[in-house]
Amino acid sequence: MIDHATLQQAIANERAEALAFDGLEYARLLDRVNRYPRGSVVLSDGAVVPGYPAIGRIQSLEAGLPRQFDQPFWAEEKIDGYNVRILRRDGRIHAFSRGGFVCAFSTDRVPEFLDPAVFDAEPDLVLCAEIAGPDTPYLEGSTPRVEHDVDLFVFDLMRLGEPGFLPQAEKFALMERHGLPAAPLHGQFTPQDTDALGRLIRQLDAEGAEGLVLKSDDGQYRAKYVTGGSCINDIGVCSEQLLDLPPEYFTNRLIRLAVYLAEHPPRDPAAVERELGRALLAGLDTAVEKSRHDGRVSHTYRCRFRERAGARRFIEHMQATGGRHVRFHPDTPRREGSYWVLEFERLFDHMAGTLGSALAGERQYD
Amino acid sequence: MIDHATLQQAIANERAEALAFDGLEYARLLDRVNRYPRGSVVLSDGAVVPGYPAIGRIQSLEAGLPRQFDQPFWAEEKIDGYNVRILRRDGRIHAFSRGGFVCAFSTDRVPEFLDPAVFDAEPDLVLCAEIAGPDTPYLEGSTPRVEHDVDLFVFDLMRLGEPGFLPQAEKFALMERHGLPAAPLHGQFTPQDTDALGRLIRQLDAEGAEGLVLKSDDGQYRAKYVTGGSCINDIGVCSEQLLDLPPEYFTNRLIRLAVYLAEHPPRDPAAVERELGRALLAGLDTAVEKSRHDGRVSHTYRCRFRERAGARRFIEHMQATGGRHVRFHPDTPRREGSYWVLEFERLFDHMAGTLGSALAGERQYD
Repeated sequence: MIDHATLQQAIANERAEALAFDGLEYARLLDRVNRYPRGSVVLSDGAVVPGYPAIGRIQSLEAGLPRQFDQPFWAEEKIDGYNVRILRRDGRIHAFSRGGFVCAFSTDRVPEFLDPAVFDAEPDLVLCAEIAGPDTPYLEGSTPRVEHDVDLFVFDLMRLGEPGFLPQAEKFALMERHGLPAAPLHGQFTPQDTDALGRLIRQLDAEGAEGLVLKSDDGQYRAKYVTGGSCINDIGVCSEQLLDLPPEYFTNRLIRLAVYLAEHPPRDPAAVERELGRALLAGLDTAVEKSRHDGRVSHTYRCRFRERAGARRFIEHMQATGGRHVRFHPDTPRREGSYWVLEFERLFDHMAGTLGSALAGERQYD
Repeated sequence: MIDHATLQQAIANERAEALAFDGLEYARLLDRVNRYPRGSVVLSDGAVVPGYPAIGRIQSLEAGLPRQFDQPFWAEEKIDGYNVRILRRDGRIHAFSRGGFVCAFSTDRVPEFLDPAVFDAEPDLVLCAEIAGPDTPYLEGSTPRVEHDVDLFVFDLMRLGEPGFLPQAEKFALMERHGLPAAPLHGQFTPQDTDALGRLIRQLDAEGAEGLVLKSDDGQYRAKYVTGGSCINDIGVCSEQLLDLPPEYFTNRLIRLAVYLAEHPPRDPAAVERELGRALLAGLDTAVEKSRHDGRVSHTYRCRFRERAGARRFIEHMQATGGRHVRFHPDTPRREGSYWVLEFERLFDHMAGTLGSALAGERQYD
């Protein structure tokens, strides 16, 4: 709970932001308020959906497992998508983004993947899920776990207003009982199971999967560990926007890849070198070509909505929050089958500026 | 000229720094003073060695040549080394770094490469030169133009106190007359000679050379243009210190490489991809191994001095100016033939910290 007076003061101090979405009044925390972290959502009666906490990353199984765990833990697959918290309020299901906004896209699509009966039985349940696939409005890449459109993978359960996650056993039971779509579960391991987890991560790497989230039995303690291939993949899907992302996006993944390769030496190192080089150069080459032909560098996102109003709300949100420079296609949203398809571009202004100047033959000082 | 009062005021305002080197009193400019740029050197009588100006870079021959030149220009080879300005003062030859310090290493070695008689005939001459090779105290990599130790390549001439460079014809004549070692000259071209210059740069690329500096006949207007291979090479020699260099070091070279490859499509794109991947991964792998075995990540530099006093002055300068964390080897300088060999390490503290934590199995938040 965050009481009305506390919330109003937080809003006045710019530590919270009051928002509304299709009749739902709520606030998102921009900073810690009481014990709730940034990204938490405060509903109109003061009930709080806690922010989804950052998960610490280990980069070495051999050193990380014994250092981080002293009990058996569960290995769940980490799906490369974006994180939402889903709940039902006043009879309607809403999906909140990591930052605490209602996500118009997710809210529109989530009912396709869930039986709402789960909220009849468990009205205060909050589903923490990854939405992934080639057709999201946020991601440049996709995951081999979703071939078309999007899919949803529940990986944690919370209860409204209660800190922390449900224990693993309770989560598994509830998910099975209500047929919730789960992120793949790869079993239970001990901190000494370096070899078995090494085999598992290399298998996931070969499949193009992102990695694992390791969770203690009580659900509270966790660490993530990703494949080398996911680092190369991340670099590849974003190299087109090399100058428009924080450089740490790239340097972190390069370091992570190097540590992964030292622990899991590849059979064909030359192939890995080539993949990494291609990941960087293919996107950059596309950017050069776009700059030359269109005078701009951008990525086109495509996603589909069940309801036209959902698409309109998504457009309004993007226009209101701005963020990166976005340009909606003129005939969007357009009807396709029973869906409304939205297409828009994100413009990479730093890439366009630098490449435009280079291709115009200007002198640059660096 | 910068008169005494102006210089004293600049020193008081921290726009200049008073220094001494083995009896030579001088000041270096930290900021523009009168019309002289940062890096200029003020001698005790007020005579000024102008700072060596940054040279603008073109990234496209096709667009850059007609945009930057409307007259024929000279193409001189750009040698991958470090820049010094050399002059004789009170009977002694000194070499100044880009920042305006006397460089103890260069000052010690320069007499091996020059006949000092040039300064008898031209007492106010300032030689602008690149010092390059595998054994410098500043560079991680080398150039195919120098196999052992170091070598010196004069590429511009100035006169003490006079702004700008000597015209090309006068420079060539003086350099020939005095037998000054020149950076390779690749001839004169017109702004329409895109094809010929394209062939030249691809030839240089195949030889592992860095690139070209294009100069107008009067010597004042110039632009540089480098090979794709030099971008990969730069990345390769510094990937070990990925987190200790500004990220722009890497992103600039990636962009430059992509624009180069778009204008000069390689015969074997897969080979270039692999070279780039290897440039990144080989250095990172070395860093991981060093971190694992030594608990630190560093690069060892080796250079040799004619005089033991030169080596001592170099050590004093490094200890006084600090900069990146340096550790001199305990038995250094040591006698080797007629030289004194200095060995020291630069420690890459960010790499060591990040890799140490990763290899210790800590959880990292990024």
